Amino acid sequence: MMPVVAIETENLLQRFLKIRNQTEVLCRPLLPEDTVVQPMVDVSPPKWHLAHTSWFFETFILQKYFKDYQVFNKDYNYLFNSYYNSIGSRILRQSRGTLSRPPLEDIYQYRTYVNEHVAQLFTKLDDVTLTEMWPVFELGLQHEQQHQELLVTDIKYILSTNPLMPALLPPSKQPPVAPESLALPEYLPVKAGLYTIGHAGSDFCFDNELGLHQVWLDDFSFRNKLVTNLEYLEFMEAGGYQDFRFWLHEGFDLAQKEQWASPLYWVKQPNGWYRFTLHGLQPVDWNAPVSHVSFYEADAFANWAGKRLLSEFEWEVAAQQYPATAEPGNFLEEGLYDPQPNPENSQLLGDVWEWTYSAYLPYPKFNKAEGALGEYNGKFMINQMVLRGGSCATPRSHIRTTYRNFFHPDKRWQFTGIRLANK
Amino acid sequence: MMPVVAIETENLLQRFLKIRNQTEVLCRPLLPEDTVVQPMVDVSPPKWHLAHTSWFFETFILQKYFKDYQVFNKDYNYLFNSYYNSIGSRILRQSRGTLSRPPLEDIYQYRTYVNEHVAQLFTKLDDVTLTEMWPVFELGLQHEQQHQELLVTDIKYILSTNPLMPALLPPSKQPPVAPESLALPEYLPVKAGLYTIGHAGSDFCFDNELGLHQVWLDDFSFRNKLVTNLEYLEFMEAGGYQDFRFWLHEGFDLAQKEQWASPLYWVKQPNGWYRFTLHGLQPVDWNAPVSHVSFYEADAFANWAGKRLLSEFEWEVAAQQYPATAEPGNFLEEGLYDPQPNPENSQLLGDVWEWTYSAYLPYPKFNKAEGALGEYNGKFMINQMVLRGGSCATPRSHIRTTYRNFFHPDKRWQFTGIRLANK
Amino acid sequence: MMPVVAIETENLLQRFLKIRNQTEVLCRPLLPEDTVVQPMVDVSPPKWHLAHTSWFFETFILQKYFKDYQVFNKDYNYLFNSYYNSIGSRILRQSRGTLSRPPLEDIYQYRTYVNEHVAQLFTKLDDVTLTEMWPVFELGLQHEQQHQELLVTDIKYILSTNPLMPALLPPSKQPPVAPESLALPEYLPVKAGLYTIGHAGSDFCFDNELGLHQVWLDDFSFRNKLVTNLEYLEFMEAGGYQDFRFWLHEGFDLAQKEQWASPLYWVKQPNGWYRFTLHGLQPVDWNAPVSHVSFYEADAFANWAGKRLLSEFEWEVAAQQYPATAEPGNFLEEGLYDPQPNPENSQLLGDVWEWTYSAYLPYPKFNKAEGALGEYNGKFMINQMVLRGGSCATPRSHIRTTYRNFFHPDKRWQFTGIRLANK
Amino acid sequence: MMPVVAIETENLLQRFLKIRNQTEVLCRPLLPEDTVVQPMVDVSPPKWHLAHTSWFFETFILQKYFKDYQVFNKDYNYLFNSYYNSIGSRILRQSRGTLSRPPLEDIYQYRTYVNEHVAQLFTKLDDVTLTEMWPVFELGLQHEQQHQELLVTDIKYILSTNPLMPALLPPSKQPPVAPESLALPEYLPVKAGLYTIGHAGSDFCFDNELGLHQVWLDDFSFRNKLVTNLEYLEFMEAGGYQDFRFWLHEGFDLAQKEQWASPLYWVKQPNGWYRFTLHGLQPVDWNAPVSHVSFYEADAFANWAGKRLLSEFEWEVAAQQYPATAEPGNFLEEGLYDPQPNPENSQLLGDVWEWTYSAYLPYPKFNKAEGALGEYNGKFMINQMVLRGGSCATPRSHIRTTYRNFFHPDKRWQFTGIRLANK
Repeated sequence: MMPVVAIETENLLQRFLKIRNQTEVLCRPLLPEDTVVQPMVDVSPPKWHLAHTSWFFETFILQKYFKDYQVFNKDYNYLFNSYYNSIGSRILRQSRGTLSRPPLEDIYQYRTYVNEHVAQLFTKLDDVTLTEMWPVFELGLQHEQQHQELLVTDIKYILSTNPLMPALLPPSKQPPVAPESLALPEYLPVKAGLYTIGHAGSDFCFDNELGLHQVWLDDFSFRNKLVTNLEYLEFMEAGGYQDFRFWLHEGFDLAQKEQWASPLYWVKQPNGWYRFTLHGLQPVDWNAPVSHVSFYEADAFANWAGKRLLSEFEWEVAAQQYPATAEPGNFLEEGLYDPQPNPENSQLLGDVWEWTYSAYLPYPKFNKAEGALGEYNGKFMINQMVLRGGSCATPRSHIRTTYRNFFHPDKRWQFTGIRLANK
Repeated sequence: MMPVVAIETENLLQRFLKIRNQTEVLCRPLLPEDTVVQPMVDVSPPKWHLAHTSWFFETFILQKYFKDYQVFNKDYNYLFNSYYNSIGSRILRQSRGTLSRPPLEDIYQYRTYVNEHVAQLFTKLDDVTLTEMWPVFELGLQHEQQHQELLVTDIKYILSTNPLMPALLPPSKQPPVAPESLALPEYLPVKAGLYTIGHAGSDFCFDNELGLHQVWLDDFSFRNKLVTNLEYLEFMEAGGYQDFRFWLHEGFDLAQKEQWASPLYWVKQPNGWYRFTLHGLQPVDWNAPVSHVSFYEADAFANWAGKRLLSEFEWEVAAQQYPATAEPGNFLEEGLYDPQPNPENSQLLGDVWEWTYSAYLPYPKFNKAEGALGEYNGKFMINQMVLRGGSCATPRSHIRTTYRNFFHPDKRWQFTGIRLANK
Repeated sequence: MMPVVAIETENLLQRFLKIRNQTEVLCRPLLPEDTVVQPMVDVSPPKWHLAHTSWFFETFILQKYFKDYQVFNKDYNYLFNSYYNSIGSRILRQSRGTLSRPPLEDIYQYRTYVNEHVAQLFTKLDDVTLTEMWPVFELGLQHEQQHQELLVTDIKYILSTNPLMPALLPPSKQPPVAPESLALPEYLPVKAGLYTIGHAGSDFCFDNELGLHQVWLDDFSFRNKLVTNLEYLEFMEAGGYQDFRFWLHEGFDLAQKEQWASPLYWVKQPNGWYRFTLHGLQPVDWNAPVSHVSFYEADAFANWAGKRLLSEFEWEVAAQQYPATAEPGNFLEEGLYDPQPNPENSQLLGDVWEWTYSAYLPYPKFNKAEGALGEYNGKFMINQMVLRGGSCATPRSHIRTTYRNFFHPDKRWQFTGIRLANK
Repeated sequence: MMPVVAIETENLLQRFLKIRNQTEVLCRPLLPEDTVVQPMVDVSPPKWHLAHTSWFFETFILQKYFKDYQVFNKDYNYLFNSYYNSIGSRILRQSRGTLSRPPLEDIYQYRTYVNEHVAQLFTKLDDVTLTEMWPVFELGLQHEQQHQELLVTDIKYILSTNPLMPALLPPSKQPPVAPESLALPEYLPVKAGLYTIGHAGSDFCFDNELGLHQVWLDDFSFRNKLVTNLEYLEFMEAGGYQDFRFWLHEGFDLAQKEQWASPLYWVKQPNGWYRFTLHGLQPVDWNAPVSHVSFYEADAFANWAGKRLLSEFEWEVAAQQYPATAEPGNFLEEGLYDPQPNPENSQLLGDVWEWTYSAYLPYPKFNKAEGALGEYNGKFMINQMVLRGGSCATPRSHIRTTYRNFFHPDKRWQFTGIRLANK
C-alpha cells in the first residue's frame, strides 16, 4: 500500500502524539453521559470512537511489535473491534449504545496507556522493523483522522436528537457574508481526453485509490461554486420534494416515507429557517454551501436545476486542471464545524463532501491486502456512492484530490453538499 | 382515594426526606454513563427515574400549592412526564435513552431544589391545604417507592446487557442455606366461602385496590414455599421448554423465538449455572426462590408439576388466613437485591412477586380519579396479569396484602417467581 | 367433555351432511381466485377453511375408526393442520396465502371423499365405537360451524381489501326500520347473589364452558338494546377517537397509529357514511347495532357514555334471568350476514358478539383433554377478551348462553358490538 | 428513442399478435388460483402481468390514437399501472397479491379487447400517425417481452413456495451431457484500447443503451464457459458461504441472516442435490451453468476462484470481438426454462444473465424522455448492478449485446449466473 522511503522516526512520533491529542481536544467539551448514547445505528458513541482508535494501535502495532506487550484489558478486543472479522467476534454495531461501562475515565486511561507504549516502542525500533511497521502505523494515523471527522458528525447528531438541542460550543461569531459580495458562479471547462486517475507517488493513500488507470472523458464543464443554502431553498419552495420527476425512484419513496422537506438539521421557526450546529441553533446562512443532503436530494436538485452531478473521474480531473481553485477551504482545524461561504475559490477541498454520481467500485487491478487490513475498504464496495473533497470536519492533512469517500445514497448526517456540472 | 385523617406534618416531611434520600442512596454507586442507557423499551435510564419522581412532586404539589413557584427548568415537563396525557406532550418512551443531557449533575440539583421547596412549603401549610394536598403527596411518596423498585430492576438489566457484566456492589457474603436444613413444602388449606377482597381502612392504597367486594372461592390449598431454583432446574432438565403441552400458545411461540431455555440472567458456565446479580455473576443458589421468570414460564412450570397458579383472590385470602406466614420476607431495605432461601415462613411478602392467573382488570365499582391522577392505574387494565406480594426490591413500607402489581405475561426483568396451588 | 347418552345414528349422519353442505353453500359464490388470498394474518383463505374442516374429520375420525382408511393425500396433514402440535408440523399461519395449489377443485373432491367415507363408516358402526367416537365427532361438527362463521368474516375481509370492493351477493332488500318505530332502550335489573356459571346437562359444549362454579355478583342492570350505529356516530362526532381520557392506554396508541376514526368497513362518501358488506357498499343503517369495533373501541364508547361493559358472568346471568329477550336474533341461516335493527328483543343472541370486560381465563377446575383435542381451547387463555352471544354469522344451532368466544382486544374483523351496563 | 424508418404495417401487427399470443401460451398451464398469489414483494401475480401488459397498450396507444376509445374498465388504471407516477395513483406493489378480483377470465377478455382494438386501429392508420406512434408501440412489444421473462421467473418462484412443489410442465427429457464430452474452459484475450459502447443503428433499443461513448479498457481475458453447477458445488463444499474473506460485507451479513448455503431452488435430498424447476424437482445437472445466484454470491465465487467478474464495458467489447461465440444459446422459445450445458460456444447470449461488477448508472449524455415513458429506466439507476446477455427465459428477438438489464445485488429469483475474467 505504500512505497518504502526513509522515515524520520522522531517526526512520526510527534505526528502520532499530535493526532492523538487532537482527538481528545475534540472530545473535551463532552460530558460522560454524552459519550454513551447511540441514537441511530450509523452513529457510534464518542466513547467508542475514543477506544476504537486506540484498539487499532494496540492490535495492529503494539501486539505485533512491542515485545511482551500486555493488553490494557482483554475484553476490549470484543468491545472495540469495529468490523474486522479476522480479529474475532465483536459487539453488534447497533448495541454500541449499551456500553455504559467501561467508564469514560477508563477509556482516557486506555488512550494514555497506548500512547505511552507507542512512545516507548519508538525508542527501541530498528530500521527493519520500522520499515515493516510503518505502513500500518501510518494507516492508524489516517484511521484516527477519519474518526475525528466521525466524532464531529456523530456528536452533532447525538446532541441534535436531544429535545434540549444543547450547544456543545459557544455561539460562533463568524459574520455572514453579504450576498452582494459574492461573485456569480461560472462553469469551468475541461477538454475531452484520456486522463490518468488514481494516486501516484510515495505519499500515503488508501488502497482504494491505487491502481493508476486511464479513463476517457468527453468535454465537460463544472461550476466553480458549491450550491448554496439560498439556492437549495428555491428548490424547496418550488416544490422540489414533492415532484417525482426529479427523483430516483428509491429516493422519492424514502423522502415521502421520512417526510423529508429540507436538509437534515434545518428547523423552521416563526422568524425563519434555523439549523442545528455544534454552536447551537443558528439562523441559516444563505450564502454558505448547503450541507447534510443525501445523494438522492443532491441528484434531485441537479435535475431540477437542469444540471447534473459530476462523475468521480470528472471531479478528479477538474481538481488536476484547476489546482488553484481548491485552496483555502475550511477544515477541522478551524474549529468551526460548519461549511462557510467562500467568495474566493471553488472549495473543491474542504467545507462539504461532494456527492458524485459514481458508485463506489474497485478500480481496475484493485487488490485487497492480506489479513485484517484487507477488510479496510474493499468489502464495502457495493451500494454506496463516491464523495470527493473533504469537509469542514476533515483534518487538512488527511485529504487529497484522489481521496475516495463513500456513503449510502440515503445518508445525511455527514457534511455532504452539491457541485453541479453542465449537461 | 384516601379518607381524611389527622396528619402529623412533621412526620410526613420526615418520611418524604427519608424516601427521597433512599432513592439517591440506591443510585450513588452509579457512574454518570450508567444513568443514560436504555437497552430495551421497558427499561428507563436511572437518570430519568431520578428526574421523573421529582417532576411528580413539582407538577402535582409545588406548582399547585407553592405560591409563585418557579419551575426548575421549563423543558423538564416534556422530558420527564411519563405517560400523563393530561399534562401535555412528552418524549417517546423508546427515546429516553437519547437523553445525554441534562447531565446527571443537573438532575441531582433538580432533586435538591424540589426537596428544599417541599420543606419550605411544609413550614407554611395550613390544615385545609394539607388535607387537600395530602392524598396526592402520599401518592408521590408511594410513586417514588415504586420507582425505587424499578431502579433496582432497570439497573440490573442495564448492567447485564453490558458484555463486561460489571458488578455494581461488592460480592454478597450471604452463605447459601444447605438443602437438608429446609423443611419440605406443605399445602395449606383454605375453606370455600364468600370472602371480602380489596382495601379497607384509612391507610394509603392505590385506586385499583378500592371497591371492597365479595368473591366466592371454592376450597383450595396453596404451597407454603415458593418454587426454588432447584425445582426449576428439574423442569428445564426434563425438557420443559421444548414441550408445547405445558405452555400457552403465545408463550411457547415466544419462548421458541427468543430461545428461552432458563430464567433471565442465568448463564451456563463450564462449572455450572450462574446468574447475574447486582453483586456480579454468582453461582445459582439452589434453595432460593426462582426469579425472573415470565408468566408464561410460571404457568408452564405449574402445568408440568401437575399444579396451578393461584388467582389473585385466592392469594389475598391466603394472606388473610395465614398472616403469620408472611413475615419476615426480604425487602429493598436489606440491600441484597436478590431473593433469599427462607426455611421459616411462606414468603408471601417479599423476595419475589408471585404471578397469579388473574388478568389485571378493574374491581367492581372501580372509578378513575378525575384529571391526571386518573391515568395512574386504570388505563393499563388490559393484557396484563396480576402479581402479588412484593419482592426483594420493594420497600417494606410500600407493600401490603391487597397490593395489585401488574405486568405483561412475557416480562422477565422484574423479580417474579412462582407460588403453586393444588388443582 | 360430553356425557354418554343414547345417540341416534341416523340423525347424526344427517346432521353431519347438512352442516358439511352448509359450508359449501356459503362458498359457492366464490371464484377460485377468491379462495386463495390472505390479506392479513388473522384471515385464512377460504380454500384453507374448506380443507381444514375436512382434515379434522379425516384425522380424528376416519384415521382412527375407519379400518384401512387411505388418506386422500398424504401432504394434506402438513397443509391443513391449523395449530395442533400433537399432529405434527404444519405450514406457518402467515403462509396460508401462498397455497395456490392444491386447486379448489381438488379440495371439493377432498370434501366429497371425506363425506363418503364418513357415510360408509356410519353403516358399520357398533354401539361401543359410536359411544367412544361420538364426542370427537360432535366436536368436528361444532368445529365446522365455527369455521362457517370465520368463512363469512374472512370472505368479507378479503373482498373489502380489493380496490374494486366487489359484492359477493346481490344487494340486500331489507328495508331499514325507521328510527321512530324503535322503543327506547331500558336498563333491566339483576339482583345481587351467588349465581351458577357454566354449562350443565348432556348437550354439547366446549371444554372451556365446563366446571360449573359459583360467582358472587352485586346488583347490576344492563341495557336491553345494543348500541346502534347512530349512537356510535355521536361518539365519533364528539371526538371520541381523539380523547385519550376514554381509552385504555394500549388501545389509544393503536387507534392513533392505525388512524382509526370509525368502525372497520365504514367509508365516508360525499353523500354520507357507507359500509362494506357482502352485498357491496351500502349506506349505514343507523338503527342497526354497531359492528366491527374492537374491545378498545367498545370500552372507550362505554366510558364516553358514562356506562360500562358487562363481565362475562353478568352477561350469562342476564341471559338466565331474561331468556325471553334473547330470541329471535339474526343468525347465519338468514343469509343476511349483517346485523339487523331489532325493536322487539334484546338481541342477547345473534346479530353481534358482545365484548365483555372479562379476560379469557380458565374456569376453576378447568382441565385440558389429553392429546390433540386438549389443544382446542386451553392454550389460548391469555391476552384475549371474552365475547358472548353469537352473531349474524353464527349458525343458530351452534350458539348457547354459556358459549365463550374470545378474541384479542384489537380485533375488528368479526361481527363484534357493544352492550352497556349501568355503573 | 428511435429513428424514423419505413414501417411495414402488416408485419408490425403480425408481430404484435404473435407476441401477445406468446404471453398467453406461457400462462395457459396455470390454474386461476396460481395467477393470484404474491409470495414476495419482487414477484407479481401472473394475472397482474397479463393485465399490466394490456394496460400499457391501452394507455399509451389506444387512448391516444384510437378515436373515441372506451376503456375496458375504468378501475384498471389504478390496478394495473406499475410505477408510472405520471399516469396517476396505483395499488401498492406489495398489495398485488390481494387482487382476487377481477377474475382471470375478465383479464383474458381484457387482453382480447385490447388486441381487437389494436388490430382495428391498424386498419385506419395513416403514415404520419404511424410514424409518431411507432416508437411507443415498439416499446409496448419490448415491454411485453420483458414481462414474458418475468412471468417465467415469477411463476417458478410462486410454485416453489408451495409445500407441494408442483410441476407446471411435464418432466424435461433433455439427457444431461456427460462431463467428459465438454471442452475445458479457456480464457479469450481482448487488447487494451478505446472502445465504443452503446447502441448504434436504427433498430430498437432502450434509452439506457443510447449515448454512444468511448471507454478505455486495459488488456483483459474472459472465460469462454460459464461457471457450472459442479464448480459452484466445489465452492460450497470448500466452505465458501462461511468464509467472510471472499464476500462483500453486506452480502456476507445477508447470507448469514438468510442462511444461504446454495443457489436458490437447490434442495438437498438423501440421494443428492436437486433443484426446483418448472418441470418439478430434478437432479442438479452438474454441467449446466449455475443459476439463481445473487451478485453477492457471484462475486464471492469469483474471489474464491482467484478471478473476478467483468465490467459491463468489458462484457460488451468481448461480445463485439467474439460474435461467433454467442450463438446458439438457449432462449424462451425453446420452452425449457432451464439453462443448458453447452459444449460448443460461450453462451454470451441466452441461458443465464451474467452479473457484471458495474453499477447501473446513466451513460454520459443520458436523457430521460418526457412524460410517463421517461420513467421507464432512468429512475431506477441507483443501488442496482448491470447484467448482460439474456437468459433461457428471454425471447430471442428481445436480446442484443448492448442490452443492459439490472437488479439489486441480493436478488436471486432471476436466471442469473457467473462469467469469470482473469485478474
